[in-house]
Formats: sequence, C-alpha cells, structure tokens
Amino acid sequence: MKPSSSNSEQTCSGLLGRLPGDPSLDALIDDAALLAAMLRFEAGLARCQAALGVIPQDSSHVIQAVAKAADYDVDELGSSAVESGNPVVPLVSWLARDVAAADVAASAHVHFGTTSQDVLDSALMMTAHAAVECLLEGLAVAADRVAALAQEHAQTLMTGRTLGQSAAPITFGLKAIGWLDGLDAATARLTGSRARLAIQLGGPVGTRAAYGEKADALADALAAELGLAVARPWHTERSRVVELASALGQTVAACAKIAADVILLSQNEIGELSEQRKAGRGGSSSMPHKHNPIGSVLVRAAAAQTPGLVATVLAAAVHDGERATGPWHAEWAPLRRLLHLAGGAVDGIADVASGLQVHESVMRQHVEGVGGAPLAHVTAAADLVHSALAGRPPRQAS
Amino acid sequence: MKPSSSNSEQTCSGLLGRLPGDPSLDALIDDAALLAAMLRFEAGLARCQAALGVIPQDSSHVIQAVAKAADYDVDELGSSAVESGNPVVPLVSWLARDVAAADVAASAHVHFGTTSQDVLDSALMMTAHAAVECLLEGLAVAADRVAALAQEHAQTLMTGRTLGQSAAPITFGLKAIGWLDGLDAATARLTGSRARLAIQLGGPVGTRAAYGEKADALADALAAELGLAVARPWHTERSRVVELASALGQTVAACAKIAADVILLSQNEIGELSEQRKAGRGGSSSMPHKHNPIGSVLVRAAAAQTPGLVATVLAAAVHDGERATGPWHAEWAPLRRLLHLAGGAVDGIADVASGLQVHESVMRQHVEGVGGAPLAHVTAAADLVHSALAGRPPRQAS
Amino acid sequence: MKPSSSNSEQTCSGLLGRLPGDPSLDALIDDAALLAAMLRFEAGLARCQAALGVIPQDSSHVIQAVAKAADYDVDELGSSAVESGNPVVPLVSWLARDVAAADVAASAHVHFGTTSQDVLDSALMMTAHAAVECLLEGLAVAADRVAALAQEHAQTLMTGRTLGQSAAPITFGLKAIGWLDGLDAATARLTGSRARLAIQLGGPVGTRAAYGEKADALADALAAELGLAVARPWHTERSRVVELASALGQTVAACAKIAADVILLSQNEIGELSEQRKAGRGGSSSMPHKHNPIGSVLVRAAAAQTPGLVATVLAAAVHDGERATGPWHAEWAPLRRLLHLAGGAVDGIADVASGLQVHESVMRQHVEGVGGAPLAHVTAAADLVHSALAGRPPRQAS
Amino acid sequence: MKPSSSNSEQTCSGLLGRLPGDPSLDALIDDAALLAAMLRFEAGLARCQAALGVIPQDSSHVIQAVAKAADYDVDELGSSAVESGNPVVPLVSWLARDVAAADVAASAHVHFGTTSQDVLDSALMMTAHAAVECLLEGLAVAADRVAALAQEHAQTLMTGRTLGQSAAPITFGLKAIGWLDGLDAATARLTGSRARLAIQLGGPVGTRAAYGEKADALADALAAELGLAVARPWHTERSRVVELASALGQTVAACAKIAADVILLSQNEIGELSEQRKAGRGGSSSMPHKHNPIGSVLVRAAAAQTPGLVATVLAAAVHDGERATGPWHAEWAPLRRLLHLAGGAVDGIADVASGLQVHESVMRQHVEGVGGAPLAHVTAAADLVHSALAGRPPRQAS
Repeated sequence: MKPSSSNSEQTCSGLLGRLPGDPSLDALIDDAALLAAMLRFEAGLARCQAALGVIPQDSSHVIQAVAKAADYDVDELGSSAVESGNPVVPLVSWLARDVAAADVAASAHVHFGTTSQDVLDSALMMTAHAAVECLLEGLAVAADRVAALAQEHAQTLMTGRTLGQSAAPITFGLKAIGWLDGLDAATARLTGSRARLAIQLGGPVGTRAAYGEKADALADALAAELGLAVARPWHTERSRVVELASALGQTVAACAKIAADVILLSQNEIGELSEQRKAGRGGSSSMPHKHNPIGSVLVRAAAAQTPGLVATVLAAAVHDGERATGPWHAEWAPLRRLLHLAGGAVDGIADVASGLQVHESVMRQHVEGVGGAPLAHVTAAADLVHSALAGRPPRQAS
Repeated sequence: MKPSSSNSEQTCSGLLGRLPGDPSLDALIDDAALLAAMLRFEAGLARCQAALGVIPQDSSHVIQAVAKAADYDVDELGSSAVESGNPVVPLVSWLARDVAAADVAASAHVHFGTTSQDVLDSALMMTAHAAVECLLEGLAVAADRVAALAQEHAQTLMTGRTLGQSAAPITFGLKAIGWLDGLDAATARLTGSRARLAIQLGGPVGTRAAYGEKADALADALAAELGLAVARPWHTERSRVVELASALGQTVAACAKIAADVILLSQNEIGELSEQRKAGRGGSSSMPHKHNPIGSVLVRAAAAQTPGLVATVLAAAVHDGERATGPWHAEWAPLRRLLHLAGGAVDGIADVASGLQVHESVMRQHVEGVGGAPLAHVTAAADLVHSALAGRPPRQAS
Repeated sequence: MKPSSSNSEQTCSGLLGRLPGDPSLDALIDDAALLAAMLRFEAGLARCQAALGVIPQDSSHVIQAVAKAADYDVDELGSSAVESGNPVVPLVSWLARDVAAADVAASAHVHFGTTSQDVLDSALMMTAHAAVECLLEGLAVAADRVAALAQEHAQTLMTGRTLGQSAAPITFGLKAIGWLDGLDAATARLTGSRARLAIQLGGPVGTRAAYGEKADALADALAAELGLAVARPWHTERSRVVELASALGQTVAACAKIAADVILLSQNEIGELSEQRKAGRGGSSSMPHKHNPIGSVLVRAAAAQTPGLVATVLAAAVHDGERATGPWHAEWAPLRRLLHLAGGAVDGIADVASGLQVHESVMRQHVEGVGGAPLAHVTAAADLVHSALAGRPPRQAS
Repeated sequence: MKPSSSNSEQTCSGLLGRLPGDPSLDALIDDAALLAAMLRFEAGLARCQAALGVIPQDSSHVIQAVAKAADYDVDELGSSAVESGNPVVPLVSWLARDVAAADVAASAHVHFGTTSQDVLDSALMMTAHAAVECLLEGLAVAADRVAALAQEHAQTLMTGRTLGQSAAPITFGLKAIGWLDGLDAATARLTGSRARLAIQLGGPVGTRAAYGEKADALADALAAELGLAVARPWHTERSRVVELASALGQTVAACAKIAADVILLSQNEIGELSEQRKAGRGGSSSMPHKHNPIGSVLVRAAAAQTPGLVATVLAAAVHDGERATGPWHAEWAPLRRLLHLAGGAVDGIADVASGLQVHESVMRQHVEGVGGAPLAHVTAAADLVHSALAGRPPRQAS
C-alpha cells in the first residue's frame, strides 16, 4: 500500500494534530491502517470461504494476492466514497476490477455474501484492537512509574488539600496511590472492552443468508483469522462500540486526574511538584523564563474533549432497522478521535510521571506551616501505600 | 423517618416527573432513601467501631438507636446544607445533638474519624446498589419477553430495512435477537458495575488516620455491614461512578433501540407492529382516534437525555487534590437522574415488549411486495435465532 | 391553586436540591408555576377566541373563571399524565369536566382548536420568560459588584498567571474586567434569547385549521395576552429552545470563570482572595478551622452540569414530522434544570463578588517575588479598566 | 506557502473525511489556511505597528515580505509545536530567523509585544469568519430551494404525522415552511455570531503593556487590517467561541430536521419523497437496486456529532487565570470540526432540497386513506405558507 502523506481527521499530523497524540498509536489507526484492515478482511474472508468450500480455492488465491498487493490511494478512495456514503463501495469495486484483470471468474467471489458495514465495522475493530494493545502497554508503563513514585514517597509528608484549602497532612505516596488506582481501573476496563471487540459478519441485513449451513463455521474461522472475537451480527447492536468509547473516556480521565494535581502543585507559590525541565519544553513565545507544565496541560486538553465524544458515541448507539440512517456514519470520527486522544493522554502522562520532580522540603515546609503532622497521619498514609503496592505485580523492566 | 411528600430533583413525582420513571426504583433512590442510607452509614460505622474497640460500646448503642429513630425532614436538612455545601454537615450536627440529649459522652463518638464525603459517597453507592438490583430484575423481565417474541417469531418473515429502505428479508425473531443482545450486554455491564460499588471510608484527606492499626479491619467490617465492596479511599478516584454512569447509559440505549424500531414499524403505512391498546393509553388531546406508541416515545425521550448526563459524570471525574472543588457536587444530580431514567426505560420497554402486537400478515405482504423471500433467508435467520436462544438460561416464571 | 409541597425534578428543594439554586427563580419555574401558566394559556385562549367571535363570550367567561379557580394537585395531574405521555391531556379533561359542571355548552369550547404541545410549549416559554427576567436582574447585580471591584482595584497590582505559572503583572481590576465582559456577553445573549420566546399555537398538526381566517388575529392576541412574541407554529422547529439553552449555558460559564479564579487565588499558599467569612459558611464536618470557598465551589458544580444539558437540548432539536417521537418530551427536564442551575450560578456569583476579600498586600508581595512590576504594566492595565468602565451605564442602586 | 498534501484533523480528506464535508469550506479552515492566517497576523501587526511608530518602518517591510513569502511545512511546524504546546512558538522562531537573514535588526520586531494566544486566536477567528461567510452563502442557497418547494407545494395535501402516527392533513408547502424557519433562524444566529468574531491582542497577560498609549489605536488598526471586530483582550473570556459553536450546532440541527423528514417520507411503504436519482448515488455494495437517501443520512450523521462538540466548547469556556491550563488547547479541534460538519450539512441539505422528488399523488392517496381533507385544512396551511413567503426577500439568482 502506498504510504500516503495525506491523513484523515484523527491522525497525529498537521499543524495542531501532533500536540496531544502518540505517533506510535496513531500509526495503528490512521487511514493507511484502516485501509489495510479492510483489505485484510476481504482477503481473510476469501481464504476462510475457500477453506469451507463456499468459494473456489482458485478465486480465493487470486483475491488474496490482489488484496495484498493493492496500492490504493486513501484520498482517491475517500473521494469515491462520497456517492455511496462509505469507502467500502468503491473499494470493493476497485478490488473486483483488479481481480477480474487477473481472473474474470474470481471477480464474482470478491466480497461474497457480505456488506459494506461488515467490512468497515470489522476493520475499525481490528485497528481498535491494535490501539487498545498499545494503550495497555502505555498504561503499564505509566502505572509502573506512578507505583515507583508511591514507593519512593510512601512517607513523604505533604499537605492534603480539600475544596481547594489546606487540610490534614497526607504523604505524596498516598496521593500517587490514588493516581495508580485510577490507572488500574482504566486498565481493567480497557482489558474487558478488548475482549468484546468482534468481527462483523452479517451480510446485507444480518442473516448471513449467502452462507447457508456454513455460516457459523465461517464466522468462527474469520474471527480467528482476524484476531477478533466471534459474535452474532451486531449491525444495529452497538454495545461493543459504546463500551470501548466509555473505557477510552475513563482512561483519559484517569490520566487527567494526575495532570490536574501536577498543574496545581506546580503553581509558583506552591511549588511542590514540577515537570522535568528540558530544553525548549514548556516554553513561551513571550516569556522565555517560564516553565509551563505543558505535558499536563495537554493531557487536560485531551480530557476536556473526551466526554463530548463519549456522549456522541452513546447517542449514536440507537441504530434503527437492520442498518441505520445516520448513527453508523456518526461513530467513525468520534471513535478514532477517542483512540487518538487516549493515546496522547497515556503517553503524555507516562512522560510526566517519569520526569516528575518532587520537592520534598517545600512539601514539608507547607505541612509545618499549617501545624505539622502527627505521626499517626504518616503511618496511616504509609500503611495504605504499602498495602496497595503489595497487591500489585512486580514492576516491569522498562 | 418522616415520609416526606417533598421530593428532590430525580424522583418520580410532580407534573412531569412521573412520565419516564419507575416508581419502584425511584423509591430506592429518593431523598428519604438517601437520608436513610446516610443514617445507616453513621449507625453502621458506630457499630463496627465499637466491635473493634475504636469507640465505646455504650456510645455505639446510643448512636445506633438515635440514628434508627431519627425523623429528620429532608427539606429542612437540605436548607441547612446550603452554608456548608452538603447535607452531611447539618445531619451530623443534628445527630450529635440528639445523641448528646441521650448521652453526652457518646456525642463525641458520632461520625468519628470520618468526613462528609465518606457518608454521602457511601450512601449514594448504597442507593445505587439497590437501584441496580431493581434494574437487573427489570432487564431480566424485559429480556424474557423479548426472548419469547424471538422464539415465537423465529420464522416470521419481514422486510429488513437498511438506511431507511427496504432490503432483503429477515425474520421478526432475528430482529428480536438483536434487541435481546443489547439487553444482555447491558445486563453484563450493570452486573460488573454493581460489583464495583464500594464504601467510602477515608476521613478528611483519605488517610483513615483516626483509626490507626484498625483502619483495614474497620473498612472490611463496614463494607460487610453496608452490603458494598471494600475499597481504598476513592475521594478523588471516581472510576466507580464513571462505570456506573456508563452502564446506565448503555442500558437506556439498549431499550431505545427497541423503542426506535417499534415507532418506525408502527407508522400507519407500515403497520407491522403496534403497542398494546389500552383505554386512555397513547391518547391525544386533539385527535381521540390516534393510537400513539407512547411507551416507546417515552423510552426514546429518556435515551435522548442520557448521553449528556453520562458526559457530565465523565467530565466531573477529574477531581483535584484530596477532595475536589466542584466536580464532586456535580455528580449527585446526574447520577440520580441516570438511575431514574434507566428505571423508566427498563420498565417501559418491558411493558412495550410484553404487549407488543405483531402483524404477521402485513409483514408478509411487504416482503412479497419487494419480491418475496427465498427459503435460504428464512432458514438462515431462524438458525441464528435458535442458536442465540439455545445459549440462554431457561425463562423465568414471571 | 393548591401550594403543593411535592416538587418535581428541577426545583430548589429536598436533600440536595437547595444547594445550587436560587429560590426566587425556582418559584418561577416549579410545578405550581408551570401549571398556573398552562391554565393561563387555556383562559387566555378562551378570552381571545371570544373577542374574535371564535367561541361564545359566555363560554369564555365560564372557562376563564374555572381556570382561574382551578386547584389541581400537581402530583395527581402528573400521575394522570402517564397514559397519554403529557400532563395536558388530563388537565384539559379535568378542566372540561369542571366547566361542564358550570355550563355544559361551554365545555365544548375548552381548549378549542389547540393541542397539548401548544399548551405545554407556551407554558414553558411563559415560565422561561419570567426566569430570564430574574436572571437578567441577577446578572445586573453581579455585574455592578464586579464593576465596583474593577473600579476600586484598577491599579491594584497582582501577578498574572498563564498555563498555571506566574507571568507578567496585571492589576486585579483588569482581571475583574475580564469577568465583567463575560457577564455582559451573557446578558446580551439572554436578552436576545428572551425576545425570541414565543407562544405556540398550531393545533394538532400546526395548521391552525380550526380558526379559519381568524388564525393570525388570534395568534397576535394570544401572544399579547401571554406576554410572549408571536410566531408561526414551531412544533418541530426548535430554534427558540436551543437558543435559550445555549444562552443559559453561556451564563453559567461566565459565572464559573469567576468562581475558578476565586478558588485558585484562595488557596492557602496564594491567599490573594477569599470569600466572605460568615458563621457556618464554608464549614467542614471534620475540620472546623477550614474556610472553604463554598460559594465558588457550588458555581463550578453548576457549570460542570450545564454543557451536557445544553448538548441534550441541541440533540433533541431534531423533531421528526409534525410533532416528534421523543425529542419533545426530552426537552422538558433539561430546560428546567438549566434554568435552575443558571439561577443558582448567577445568585451565587453575585454573592461571591459582593463579599469578596481582596488581599492587596499579598498580591503585591507575590509580584515583588517575581521581580516587581514596571510602571508601564500598571498603567496599561488601569487604562483598559477605565475605558471598559467608561463604556458602561451608571451603577444601579442595589 | 507550500500546498501540503498532509492535512490535519478536520479537513475534507482521507478515507472517511470527505463524506460529510464541503470542500470549498474546508479549504478555508484547513492547515494551510490557518498557517496563512497566522502569517497574515504577524505581517499585519508589523504593518500597523510601523504606521503608529511602535516599530521602524524598515523592520515592518522586511517582516511583511518574509511572512508573505514564507513557505513553511505544516507537518514540520506541527512537529515542532510539541515541546511548547502550540505551533506559534516555532512559527515565530522560524519567522524571526528568516527575518534576521534579511535584516538582523528587524528580527527583534517580529511578534512584538504579543503572545502565542494572540496569534492563534486571531487566526482561528479569521478562518472562522471566512467559513461563516461560506455557510451563510450556502444557507441562502438552501433556503431559496426550500422556499421554492414551499411556493410550489403550498396546496399539495399530505398527511401530518405526530408521534409517528398519521394525524390531520397539512400541505407539503407548510412542512417546507417549517424547514425554512429553521434555516432562517440559523442564518440569524450565524450572522450575529459573525459580528462578534474579533481580533485577539493582549500580549502575555492581556495588558497590551508593550504598546503604551498606542495600544488602543493598534488594536483598532489591526482589527481593520484583518477584517475582524475590535475587542478587549479575551484570552480567558470565551463567549465569542461559545457563541460561534452554538450557532454552528443550531445550523446543523436545522439541516438535520429536513434530513429526518426526507428519510422518513422516503421509506418504501410511505414513498412521498425521494432524493434525486443519480448514477452511483445512494448505492449499496450488496443490493444494487436500492436507492438510499444518502444525502440525508450524511446530514443526520453530522448532526449526531455536533451536540458533543458544542458541549466540549462550552465546557472548555471556563479558562483559569490569564491564560488557561488546558481549556484553550481543547477548543481548537472541536471548533474546526464544527465548522467542517456545518459546511457538510449545509452543502448536503442544499443538494437534497434541490433534487427533492415530491410524489404528490402518493401524498394525496395517503390523505384519502385516513379520511380525506376538509378544505379548511388546505386553506389554513396555504395561508401560513403564503404569509411566510411574503415576508421573505425575493429569491436570489442561483
């Protein structure tokens, strides 16, 4: 496939698109990746159909070879999608044309018994699966770093702050355990959501009528082929998409809790935390001396955008009839955008946690300023930290 | 406790509040229920603290007795909450006053070592737990009815409709299986979310410092006492609330998919389904002959309100510091409103499914109008129905 | 009408409902007010119809008298609304019954030629109109107080903070001008939105067919009678509702900007602002020494809830056919909730602004800590303040 | 400037990005346009500063020449933006470098006294202004076409449908008047919003301190230069952005009302409307005979995405301090996405309206099926149509 420099709406490119994203995740969900997944669907379908005798082996071989070699331009395909309302219609037409050029008979077996939504839903799930893997790796890294902060600062006294006001003392390690619990909950949700990512295979109205008695076996084989769960046709039963979107929203929120605390504790008069200083990092066009917590700011910016996108996916979950009159098309951009923002938030917060500067003496000074800390508070906080860490698996090498 | 006729914002009362709600669920989350849960928290805390020797048994007995007998007016308590920003501050003050009237020494042991957010979070989780139980029962009823429709109409031919246009044939049973899959997915999500509903016990800044070495045992005992999971303090780690809200949103969306199909198929020119006719049901103030699918309309109205509420809860999940400056207060109304709307949607759709009229001959006529249905389609659809139903537990008596 | 102690979902009552609200605004939109508005519609319609000869004068007199004397219970009416899906159906039936008791012939002229949605839309607009008046008065008070702060502190040096970090100096007066600009923009939007609040009069399908040639005159007369704009039937053209919701959202956001700054500048280590100390205000159940900026916290909590509600109203603006299958019913609660939250935010922020303590010496000390302020900065900031204030009307007496 | 084939997140390109967009509007807001606007800001600023004697004329000439000739790659600029968190920091650095290459002294006058947010906010407003102009032209075209439908079908009887059920008769012209009223209201809102699009000029903390007494004159001159309104610094007073987002949301909703009706009335069993048949338009990958109302489906898909984006912009309107810690960065993508979706919806609905097929005999047949239409209904509906059209300006040539 031609590596296209033209990117679609969710990718980590252009003037503003690089800011919140994680380029390694974005490469898993961009247009090139999505087109590759659609072609893998068509090739995999042909392979499984031939294995079950639904289409001839010869046709399958040609289809697989042509799909593998296909070098379609995403912009051109996108333009051709306007009339039918989705890119699968032109893709299938181009594929059939190119298969016919090699073997006219095989051309009739392209996309056999399936429908646009089967292809695009499956391809979106394939790219989402890869992206969730990437997010889980990123979360593991972030969690390890936060756990290390908790360990190191289990007894580092600092002021607890409630409703914006200084309250009783905590330890910074305990604050980090709160961050960690959020990351762990997000990890659990994403892991659960990943297991529900399934192939779509229903044909025009979800009956799989073209496959007769072989329908179930074909679905099983295709799911194995594409690395997704098997499921009944879910053209208008969108719980998988809703669950994924919710888990992504929760992931970004967990990162944003950390970012919010870092921003507050980095204020000059507080000065208990700061992001790592690097040349050029957090700079200003007008005040070169400033050291902005830009990593945290960008994570907060991502978190400000996710609830609206989650709501959009949820609102679009009510699909009428056998394939919907709008809601399906409305899912694509928000879902990819959520994956993109989650990638940036996880990557960003791992980075923030990794380089975080903890100013222990300032913390201690503030605690003393409001009357010091009885030993009981340190002990209680440290106990919570240690029991929390004891329940976790050993740190990964990173 | 005095049964108050004055109800707060989420309940099934007043001029407009009865429409989408389920009175039996609403009774589990209304102000009286929430106040009762707060008092159960204070009484249970005293009981567990005495059992562990944290406070004297005598004090505990008085506190439990006073809390049990308390007959506070929710409006008065609500008014007294304005100055502190939450109703726990006046509640604790009233409770301490009433305990002191019985036993001055015991008064110092009221609400010992805990904080407002412990009480209100735990009470909200207790009422949510009861409400989710109610929802799961409702979903089981609705699923049974939909499964019965699927069974009965496994081979009832009808037109599949995609992008609003008549397409290849399906059976009505297969459509019902799609509905059922949505209800089952919602059931799974709610079940998972229920297991995460936990007590809140952290004290002012989440250290449980007042309890020393007994902190863990106290948390375990209180969780058992209140019927919730045990958890580390989660004052600013709101994944439980986000997960509950998301599961509720998904539940309403699953109901709304059914409602959307019923509304479309009830249009006069289509006429393949209709809601049960009852005297007065679906009537109009100006056109008495009309038979509006009002059950489905109200479920759709509920579904139109949930995504915004889910987004609000998600946006409010980023809590700063040890207790937040706004987001916590912002959760209460949307969460209760989501429970209320989910109750109404589940109850409403169970009702719609139960009384649904399926006009088989009209369905058949429409299929024939677009060219009839090859046997393969019926067989394929019916096979999907039967394998879906085979995987389900036997129907409950209802 | 019987003052009912039972309140519906948006009112300032119950355990949690008092916190963010303004009781004087809530009284304008509660169930009693909405029912009164519906009865005023029916009475006003009869009066105008009789004046134009559409119904007999005798009937009109009886209808007006009965509507005026009606003493219906909102809970009972709400319960009776369940079957038809809206409270107008039972209201009209009760009204017709009571009119018939006085004059059988007049009974046929109740609600003549109109439909449920005419009544409820008009009544919601009437209550919204009163609420917007109240909000505009509140905004004027808040703006006066903020303008007074700007005037007084035009030259009060303080640190400007960007991306959370101390930057170049400003004056507190200039910050207050930014607050004021937000309040003024909200005032302009609300004023514009108020002018668009119109009667609904269309009859069952929006043709006004029952009124023949007198339709236009009747609409004009009814609009004058009810104090609303006249408009073509807008049963499924919801721009008025969307505009109102947007203006309310913007109003709350303008208040929340002030609240956010107050919370940040009240942090103990910053200490440049504080909310007024009053007995019991901002108290904590566990830490009696704390002085929480609870007024600002509650405004932020309101602001966290509004975007989801505005989105709900916007999503519900797409009404199918001549009267919609869900979206209409979905508007009621969010709209009233937005009015309620806006009332609380405006009232709350007026209160915060009124009692705001400005700690000038702390501000100056922080400026000096980051290198002092060249005179040019003070002059530039003060010039902006003075020119901004010069463009405003003189302060109102308050 | 180099025409880049790499596009950022909102543009009408790639695999899925072409579907809902209007290429002519997208070209006004894409990365190339935004970068051009930023450079126009820097050049215009230098020009106005020189005219007022703030910087030397010679420097101004060099800066203008270099900015005009600048040929920066948006992807490269976007990558360089990661460290500082916005693309203005590297842009100014590149510009200063290139100016220095021509005239070392002039380099110190680049971006004089201003800040990143001044540049990016102004540039976004400039591109938004152009986009709103384009939308207003599109709305005028769409409104003309809908008005023509209303005129032509003022007396074309059809069934009114309420709550999904056939009700009393209307005329198709009256339905079109409802569509038109929505388009006209959106036009008014967008027109009002356009007048509020203003330059941003405040410097690092909004004092304009670098410009001394010339600050006001500079702001006036720059506003005139860039074709925007003049305003006090609004770095954290975001009403302009909120109003624009709301107006865009309302615009898409007005289009979606039309789309919803077209989809419903195009169902095969109803068949009263259909979108124009064109080769390839509305095709299916699996059922070649189908004629999907794809134009309307895509408009509905756009409308499903807008409420979440409007909510995001509103939620992000609460900017802390003098420049915010996240909300500013959160505005960019949703705002551009809203402009993109509005472009697609307006263009799409103009197309739908233009080619709409009205099947009068089917409409009449359905009216007769439910009992026919008394003349009064036709007359009443036609009267409303004619008076509505009488109030409009004469149709534009198109």
